[in-house]
Amino acid sequence: MPVRVRFIAGDAGDLLVERITAVRGEPLPEARAVQRVEGSEFAAAPGAVFTLDGVRSHERYVERAERVQLVAVQEDLGRVGSRCAALIPIRKSAAWWALPQDERRAIFEARSHHTEVGLRYLPAIARRLYHSRDLGGPFDFLTFFEFGEADTSAFDDLLGALRDTEEWSYVEREVEIRLRRAGA
Amino acid sequence: MPVRVRFIAGDAGDLLVERITAVRGEPLPEARAVQRVEGSEFAAAPGAVFTLDGVRSHERYVERAERVQLVAVQEDLGRVGSRCAALIPIRKSAAWWALPQDERRAIFEARSHHTEVGLRYLPAIARRLYHSRDLGGPFDFLTFFEFGEADTSAFDDLLGALRDTEEWSYVEREVEIRLRRAGA
Repeated sequence: MPVRVRFIAGDAGDLLVERITAVRGEPLPEARAVQRVEGSEFAAAPGAVFTLDGVRSHERYVERAERVQLVAVQEDLGRVGSRCAALIPIRKSAAWWALPQDERRAIFEARSHHTEVGLRYLPAIARRLYHSRDLGGPFDFLTFFEFGEADTSAFDDLLGALRDTEEWSYVEREVEIRLRRAGA
Repeated sequence: MPVRVRFIAGDAGDLLVERITAVRGEPLPEARAVQRVEGSEFAAAPGAVFTLDGVRSHERYVERAERVQLVAVQEDLGRVGSRCAALIPIRKSAAWWALPQDERRAIFEARSHHTEVGLRYLPAIARRLYHSRDLGGPFDFLTFFEFGEADTSAFDDLLGALRDTEEWSYVEREVEIRLRRAGA
């Protein structure tokens, strides 16, 4: 079953905000910390500066052969050494969503190599994708990343590689929230 | 932008219930009428027997060539002569959702001919698909159909053809709600 997530930005949380950068489009307000809560029941978040809701759902583009490669090398969230994190909410344009499945897939992988690029940074950069478009929020996707201090520049390279793709020409809003696990 | 829908089943509504049949899995309770409400803001539905929420969203399997064929012949909802309607909520199994995109697509079209079968019944049977899996409700899809009295048996044929497919072997819950526009 799909699992809901809520990111709660405010004064307190497990993940301390290092910086919030509006990469494209409207920014998000400043906050001191972010809490990531997965589950079907959400407590209210009084005093939150902003909240972002999403859902862990099925894959939309990945094919069998790619999944086999991913599963062979990727690692899950929560590794002890991964004290750095990032939350990157993205919204794509109406033009993207109007494309049929085969054309979105062709841009995503054949021409932008999205999965192939991500593979190069595994297992160092762990990620979890949440969908939010059908939920009606301001973003289509919320991607959460975790990595060790030593992989910070690799993470910056990954973001740069993706932002250079044809796929990213359809991104009309992107905010980069860089985080560090509290106590690290 | 995705558009939300709420189907409200109760004592009153534009669409009078002819019958509610549990095709597979758990039934839905009996109700006298159904109201279909599209929009981003929903009034509460006190006294509703049940409500089903969904969202009109982008296409998940249809490719460019198929869309061209569909757009050439399909007609929108709301035709004056279409006094018959149906709402068919469906849930697919965990095994379906665990398949990668290419394998779901192969079952959907190459082996089950879902779009091709639907095309045979256009423009007589108008349909609108709503997604509900990511919203967390009891169904994955809510499909709404409209057609004229004379096309009732064609509609039954369409349902039979789809239920005979490999794709339908992944359907673990299906309820068929047959409706008639009030005053017709």
